Amino acid sequence: MNLQQAIPVEAIRYDDRGLVPAIVQDYLDGTVLMMAWMNREALQKTLDTGETWFWSRSRQAFWHKGETSGHFQKMHAIRYDCDSDALLVSVEQLGDSACHTGERSCFHRVNDSIVPPPADMLSQVFDVICDRRDRPSDSSYTSKLLADGDNKILKKIGEEAVEVVMACKDDDPDAIAGEVADLFYHSLVALAHHNVDLRAVYQKLQERRR
Amino acid sequence: MNLQQAIPVEAIRYDDRGLVPAIVQDYLDGTVLMMAWMNREALQKTLDTGETWFWSRSRQAFWHKGETSGHFQKMHAIRYDCDSDALLVSVEQLGDSACHTGERSCFHRVNDSIVPPPADMLSQVFDVICDRRDRPSDSSYTSKLLADGDNKILKKIGEEAVEVVMACKDDDPDAIAGEVADLFYHSLVALAHHNVDLRAVYQKLQERRR
Repeated sequence: MNLQQAIPVEAIRYDDRGLVPAIVQDYLDGTVLMMAWMNREALQKTLDTGETWFWSRSRQAFWHKGETSGHFQKMHAIRYDCDSDALLVSVEQLGDSACHTGERSCFHRVNDSIVPPPADMLSQVFDVICDRRDRPSDSSYTSKLLADGDNKILKKIGEEAVEVVMACKDDDPDAIAGEVADLFYHSLVALAHHNVDLRAVYQKLQERRR
Repeated sequence: MNLQQAIPVEAIRYDDRGLVPAIVQDYLDGTVLMMAWMNREALQKTLDTGETWFWSRSRQAFWHKGETSGHFQKMHAIRYDCDSDALLVSVEQLGDSACHTGERSCFHRVNDSIVPPPADMLSQVFDVICDRRDRPSDSSYTSKLLADGDNKILKKIGEEAVEVVMACKDDDPDAIAGEVADLFYHSLVALAHHNVDLRAVYQKLQERRR
């Protein structure tokens, strides 16, 4: 995609302050990292440079995200919505931290607790698995499997792969979904056991999609 | 999570019109479905009913999403950002269509083209695979594999599972990421071949996470 041609800057509907909200989303797992405001010039700078520029309402100044922190956002795609008054920017977040608090996402709060931002279901399950690895619980199947080690985990991958094969040969949609879920889950356990991030898998998938 | 206690309605910073932007995200694959505005009462109604309520700026009236289309949004989680002036609502979208155009997401436009909204990488790869299934191309490995049918696809799942096992036994992080990517990719091909949606797999994972 030619990013500079992706958005008709003139056709965006800016509000009475000349601003449009821009939602910034991680390009790999769909996590919403932050929301900020662009004016026409900030949008043009974003398209020209391939990095996000916003308009700071409090400072009344351009804000080149990452300028002070080094946490620049490399734009992968940009879209506008059906009534042309909101933008969605898909980015690679350098430093893996979009929030000034150091958290990955600005949306990390549920009342007074810090929680991981919602990403896709596979990433959410992977977060839980990593938590069970780091804070084992006696009642957790995942903790037990991780404690049993490689051979037990890998044996399960073989078993679940065979179950996917059988469900497909039976052409049973519900069983196929269930067995693929089991295969994915046990693959995530293997990743966690070897300290490989699911994001590394997503990066491999992205490279191959090109 | 007790949704009614997730957000301190009084602590949210509404703008001079009494509004706060609410980003609505799919609970399974992280797709941003739409952005709309809530005032304090709409937020309270959302928390009370577990369905999304907005404030329509054009109609100057409450807007219970789905009221006319039947496409209600069932809230799964809600968060606010670090400066308390934006909301992120994780929902199950009934009718699989959030946009008044009938598209799944309001963010479906790149210049004049309709494109699928960005979700996680696995969902994006799955979209490409389904496209290769529905519009086969001679130069596509995926199209060829799908044409070869079940036995070829399932043989690849067995092969890739074994390669994950070997990469883990070698404790080689890069190989592990690459082999898990291959295993995931071929599992997605099996899903596409059997017309099983990746969302069904995510639903299975979600049910088990409870």
